[in-house]
Amino acid sequence: MSIGELDFIERLRAIATHPGARRLEDDAAVLGDLVLTHDSIAEGVHYRPDDPPASVGWKLVTVNLSDLAAKGAEPLAALMSVTIGGDPRWEELFLSGVAAACEAYGLPLLGGDTIALPAGAPRVLGLTAIGRGGAHVPARSGGKPGDRLWLVGLLGDAATGLAVLEADPKAEGPLVEAYRRPVPQLAVGRLFAPHAHAMMDVSDGLLMDLQRLMRASGCGARLDLDALPLSRAFIAEVGANRRARLTAATGGDDYALLAALPAGLDPALSLSLPSGTIIAPIGRLAEGEELSLFDAAGEVPLPETLGYEHRRA
Amino acid sequence: MSIGELDFIERLRAIATHPGARRLEDDAAVLGDLVLTHDSIAEGVHYRPDDPPASVGWKLVTVNLSDLAAKGAEPLAALMSVTIGGDPRWEELFLSGVAAACEAYGLPLLGGDTIALPAGAPRVLGLTAIGRGGAHVPARSGGKPGDRLWLVGLLGDAATGLAVLEADPKAEGPLVEAYRRPVPQLAVGRLFAPHAHAMMDVSDGLLMDLQRLMRASGCGARLDLDALPLSRAFIAEVGANRRARLTAATGGDDYALLAALPAGLDPALSLSLPSGTIIAPIGRLAEGEELSLFDAAGEVPLPETLGYEHRRA
Repeated sequence: MSIGELDFIERLRAIATHPGARRLEDDAAVLGDLVLTHDSIAEGVHYRPDDPPASVGWKLVTVNLSDLAAKGAEPLAALMSVTIGGDPRWEELFLSGVAAACEAYGLPLLGGDTIALPAGAPRVLGLTAIGRGGAHVPARSGGKPGDRLWLVGLLGDAATGLAVLEADPKAEGPLVEAYRRPVPQLAVGRLFAPHAHAMMDVSDGLLMDLQRLMRASGCGARLDLDALPLSRAFIAEVGANRRARLTAATGGDDYALLAALPAGLDPALSLSLPSGTIIAPIGRLAEGEELSLFDAAGEVPLPETLGYEHRRA
Repeated sequence: MSIGELDFIERLRAIATHPGARRLEDDAAVLGDLVLTHDSIAEGVHYRPDDPPASVGWKLVTVNLSDLAAKGAEPLAALMSVTIGGDPRWEELFLSGVAAACEAYGLPLLGGDTIALPAGAPRVLGLTAIGRGGAHVPARSGGKPGDRLWLVGLLGDAATGLAVLEADPKAEGPLVEAYRRPVPQLAVGRLFAPHAHAMMDVSDGLLMDLQRLMRASGCGARLDLDALPLSRAFIAEVGANRRARLTAATGGDDYALLAALPAGLDPALSLSLPSGTIIAPIGRLAEGEELSLFDAAGEVPLPETLGYEHRRA
């Protein structure tokens, strides 16, 4: 985030004093049994102008569903807000992607608005997603020293897909797909939520997001780099050594879930996870406030950049 | 609206098939007892780049509250989405206006997001407002021939204020205030809602919005131009003759309420309206599908433009 955004959010925090705002530190707000989130994506900031428009529509819906997933909420309804740029074919394909994602995850689109902007202005596409939370809507806070950290999904594919596209805009394949078509972990989020001391989605890089969870929970953490779940495509492109694993841990756009579960709970044994679910125990919360990394060869120094900060700047 | 927007909304309608979407023909969506709306405002489209930033923040909140008012809903929560343009002072003042409006109408701000756009991109400011509806959430449809049409608030001030500003950007006064600081009719909306066969807010010009209500309700209407409520400031600036009244009826940005109430109900007698409430019976719904205007001198031909279409184009 830019200084301007951090400043702005700090000022906003002084206004957003309702407990449901969760100090603007969480993935979503809570209102009664509702979970509320709004994420916008902008052309040239969160997606490439040459990304297929249907994938942009898919992404707009799924990045918001990922926030609901992180709170264990069931999708109820969405409102969409789009700027119209005078390219009806683009907009038609964009809407087909919105419709596909809403259909895939049972999210009724209830309304929103459109604005015609002058030609040349970057598109700004927003979605409010409303979900119903369970009895416990895990926050980023609530993690306790000793909790085991679990990751749901894969790391590094999306950021690598973006890097591949930056080198060759015509590139295709599973890494590019991961960048363009995030998969929200709704089913696992709902299964984890009743047990999770803390949970969030990983969208800006695992290390950066884990640090947010740590700060909100008042904990340190030890993370096992060797445990990070990597895809075959990622390993083929980037490798699996320490450097590759640090790339995966700092890449952003993963839309994986990060959960702090009680040490005694093994979700693979205790929960009826959908077949094919990729989950991995990747470390533990600890006393203190430090984030330490290790792998089979020993302690690993923290990289300079923990996540994908410039993505939003 | 532009052709592009109409096209887009037509396509959107094919996706938004949930009954709560109300065919995208209403001011807001309905989900259980919740009323949901999202309106964005863009620099150079819905506000002037030289408008005081606090008034822009006020407007963003109140245009959304006006949609809740039109459904008789009580404000519950808001999510805000803003683009950050690299002018922290502007953003600070903008937020002060958001805070003032949220405070004035008891709307807790629960979250949202920020995007840093490249310098020069027009600002896009969005708000999702969530309210709790009563037992009857009046739609634009539901009006019946014979219903009396009531207007809550004043007409023409805001559009005249904009015209005044276009001639002199340093102008001040009540008309400019009306343009910059809409007042949502929340209290009257809540009192009207249980009785209203149809209700909406007037934001694009009375004639245009009335025509939307008529089409949704499958009715015609007869409107008494002489009955339109005009302010002293409007009369001083524009006059009160037929031409001035047509200006007031087509100007836009009024954020008044238009309600179709059963013929026998006089809200001034039957409802405990807040003191100072400006309400006026302005006509009736009729059989057929035609909108006819009259004044003391007889029938009045419909003007060519029924509302403020270019506002969003």
